[in-house]
This record gives sequence, C-alpha cells and structure tokens, in this order.
Amino acid sequence: MLFLSAISSARDGELIVGKVGRDVGLVEAQLAARRAAENLIAVLSEALDGDLSRVEAVLLLRGHVNATDDFPDVHKVVDSASDVFIEILGEKGRHARTAIGCATLPNLNTVTLDAIVVLVVSQP
Amino acid sequence: MLFLSAISSARDGELIVGKVGRDVGLVEAQLAARRAAENLIAVLSEALDGDLSRVEAVLLLRGHVNATDDFPDVHKVVDSASDVFIEILGEKGRHARTAIGCATLPNLNTVTLDAIVVLVVSQP
Amino acid sequence: MLFLSAISSARDGELIVGKVGRDVGLVEAQLAARRAAENLIAVLSEALDGDLSRVEAVLLLRGHVNATDDFPDVHKVVDSASDVFIEILGEKGRHARTAIGCATLPNLNTVTLDAIVVLVVSQP
Repeated sequence: MLFLSAISSARDGELIVGKVGRDVGLVEAQLAARRAAENLIAVLSEALDGDLSRVEAVLLLRGHVNATDDFPDVHKVVDSASDVFIEILGEKGRHARTAIGCATLPNLNTVTLDAIVVLVVSQP
Repeated sequence: MLFLSAISSARDGELIVGKVGRDVGLVEAQLAARRAAENLIAVLSEALDGDLSRVEAVLLLRGHVNATDDFPDVHKVVDSASDVFIEILGEKGRHARTAIGCATLPNLNTVTLDAIVVLVVSQP
Repeated sequence: MLFLSAISSARDGELIVGKVGRDVGLVEAQLAARRAAENLIAVLSEALDGDLSRVEAVLLLRGHVNATDDFPDVHKVVDSASDVFIEILGEKGRHARTAIGCATLPNLNTVTLDAIVVLVVSQP
C-alpha cells in the first residue's frame, strides 16, 4: 500500500491559485484538479520506476478545494481529477473519493489531492 | 480493508444543507451526522450483501462539517455519527476519528462522512 | 496498522486556539503543531506500552490548520509537526503528508493532527 502526499497543480513553476467562487471559475478549478491528478500519477509512476502496471487499485482519492463558503460544486471540481485516474489507469483507477471545500491550502493553491494506492507485490 | 467514499445525509431526496452556526443549529447538524452515518453503514451493508457481521473493525471515521469560522463544536456534531456506528455495530463500531470544519461541502451539505473498515476474510 | 484519532495541542489543560492569520501568528501556530505532534506520539507510545521501537513506519500525517482564507502558509505550520516525528522517530518518522486550512476545528483549536502508523508485528 502506498500513501501519496498531497500535491498541487504546479506545472513548470506555474500554480493555479485562489478561491473557486471568487478568484477562479469552475472550469479553471477543474483544470487545476486535472493537473494535480496528473502530477500525483507522475509521482506514483516515479515511485514505480515508470511501471504503472504495478498499480493494483486506487483505494482512496481525497480532493481539497480552496473555495468560498457558498460554492456548491467542489465535487464537480474533483470529478476532473477522478476522470484523469480512469483515463490513465482504466478500471484500476476507479476509487473511493472525498471532496471538501477548504478555508485555504498551501500557497493558496486552488486544488490539492492525495491518494492511497495498492500495488501488486512483485515476485522475484 | 474497505474504503468508503464520503456520503451525505441525503434521504428520500431530502438534504440537510447550509452552515452550522449560521443556517443550521447544532441539533439539526447532529441529525445530519446521524443520517450520514446511517447512509454510510447502508453502503457498507450493501457491499457485504447485507452481512454486517463481516465487519471486523471500523478503523477510521472522518467527519466533515460545513461550519462558520467561529463554530466551536464540530466534534459534537460528529459525535452523533460515532454514536450510530456503536449503536449498530457494537464494540466493532468503535473507531479512530477526526472532525473538521469545512469552508464548504458538495451541494452545500452540512455534513459528509467517510470511513475505512476492516472486513473478516470469508473462508471457503 | 494503527489509526490515530485527531489530537490537538492541549497540554496541562492549556489549548492554543484561534485562527492563524487573525488571532494567532505563524510562530504560535507552529508551536501548536509541535505540541500536537508530541501529543500524537505520546498516544502512540502509550498504545505500544512505551515501546516506540515497534513503530515500523509513519505512513501518513494529516495536519488541519484553523486559518483565515488568505493565509498562505498552512504547510509551514504543519512542517513543525513533521519535524517532531523525525526528531523522535528518526528515519521511521518520515511520512506522506497533507496540510489543509480549515474553517474551524473542535473547540476552535489552531491545529489538529491525525496519523496512520505501521507497527512491527511482535513475535512470540
């Protein structure tokens, strides 16, 4: 079982920051979620020496969305992250999931994600 | 080990929504927590073909409460969810627990819960 | 695998409460994180009859920070908790980690932490 630290949408030094519902719209927040998911899978791939076929199942995806207190759609933001897991990992990318709206996130990121993954035990 | 997605208090299409401390009082929030716990155990029961005796232990219950930033009692809200686990599952329903106050939740729900459960491995 | 409930910085009946970015500065929030980490390890130690050498690995540390919605440094708060794990447990204290900013926490605490730990199975 592999526990992955929360990761943001950072790419090439570029962050998507700010609160959905005030600074950032739904579509841009969904892009942040998508990038964060791609980053999380990149970390996973690196931990597996590039061999994502060793992923047996994604047990849990937790999506944290920096959102105003009247924003109703944090699940729609995290849906974009879930989509990436299924696009890249197929049925093994399906997961239990939680989406919450946060008061703030590290560096004011719009989205962070963490995950718990089960690996195939490699046989000698 | 079974990971359960976050679930709300929705019942018969009726949601308890809004922020505790502003839109919703403590008692109504506790009702939301209770219903969310019942919903979570219903999902668990369905996953076990109705056989809750296969639950070995509830490892972790995480309660997310949509609350104002001066609401001091998110733990009292989640206590009502914990009570349901023990009422239905007895000692096996006891769990480690975390309660947090969120800026917002999916569909502005007042409470969502997720859980990690250990099952008895069925013997052939 | 041991799941530890969220715990605050409470010590000798004294709590560090309030929101970082409004009521509490970064340094005091980091002290809260440090104390919460020490409290979490104290609970862990008690569960192991004082034998922390039975800790095989800290899988996940989750830090919840009661913060204003423009506070950018929740990760710097939780860093102080991470430091304590490594100071006390050495390399086995290294962990995957998530830091989020919450709207509120139980009793208006500034920081709460929970963790998942793997233990060495004792041999008879």
